[in-house]
Amino acid sequence: MTPKRVDVRVSGLGGQGAVLVGEILGRAAVYDEKYVVQTQSYGAEARGSAARSEVIISDKEIGFPKVRKCDILVAMSQDALNKHLDDLKENGILLVDKNKVRDVPKVKAKVFSIPATEIAETASKSRIYVNTIMLGALTKITGVVSEEAAKEAIVDTVPKETIETNLESFGRGFEFVGSGD
Amino acid sequence: MTPKRVDVRVSGLGGQGAVLVGEILGRAAVYDEKYVVQTQSYGAEARGSAARSEVIISDKEIGFPKVRKCDILVAMSQDALNKHLDDLKENGILLVDKNKVRDVPKVKAKVFSIPATEIAETASKSRIYVNTIMLGALTKITGVVSEEAAKEAIVDTVPKETIETNLESFGRGFEFVGSGD
Repeated sequence: MTPKRVDVRVSGLGGQGAVLVGEILGRAAVYDEKYVVQTQSYGAEARGSAARSEVIISDKEIGFPKVRKCDILVAMSQDALNKHLDDLKENGILLVDKNKVRDVPKVKAKVFSIPATEIAETASKSRIYVNTIMLGALTKITGVVSEEAAKEAIVDTVPKETIETNLESFGRGFEFVGSGD
Repeated sequence: MTPKRVDVRVSGLGGQGAVLVGEILGRAAVYDEKYVVQTQSYGAEARGSAARSEVIISDKEIGFPKVRKCDILVAMSQDALNKHLDDLKENGILLVDKNKVRDVPKVKAKVFSIPATEIAETASKSRIYVNTIMLGALTKITGVVSEEAAKEAIVDTVPKETIETNLESFGRGFEFVGSGD
């Protein structure tokens, strides 16, 4: 899958790492030699509110970002899903954390439900890895960035002492999707 | 000056640090307890083309960024000015690097022309500090972030070995504006 331009939105609660996922994704796309426009909001998270980031990945130079519907939406909380679902294109791709999003309204979208919190707590003993698990699933499902570039971007983005566990978590998300769920 | 919401666009050639200025500015605004939405483009710079970043600073939570005209435009090259000038609001603030932008069209804006490249080459012996010189001038002129927060954000953003020179450069830009030009 190599579309001309893909808009990805990652949303969640503050602290879940939506901004970090956007950063890694943006960096990975640059490694893949794409053009990238990356938007992130700060401030709200510190107040325990919603966090989000958006990454536009394109084969061509991107004009200053227009507001448009996204092709891919990652929702790591119910509130995030409720807030952003209207902005997902018809037949777009929706990834949710199954453990956090209980109620997915009927939509014309390909919905992937990943038990990211459960995987993080069981395998990595910490919820902080939910974001790289979702990133692994996203990479496998959408191919919007290459696996190699995503891993390289993780190494270059996360704190050194968490690289190994983040790469493992990425792998768990990536493999989960292939497991027939 | 404490407006409700200010849109700042920083533009220049790849390598001039437009993205870095946006990052520092965004971080400084968070330190000032504002809400921030920060957008940056990657990819184009690596190809020697234009680079830009946009920072929206607000007292209130910001909806996902709408495309609108900016209140403040920083142009570090003639091409950047030509490309973005139409997006500056009437009576907005325009900062240009005097050594790089020879031709400022007549516009309804407050224009500040800072010899940033000259200051960088003379005082810091390197052009790479043009960006923090412009940031210093921007901070003094607009007050969009506090001087303290800007300095703190520089310390927390730039490579350790360049902190001192970046802080000095910020100070030079800040003081230049007060020098009666």
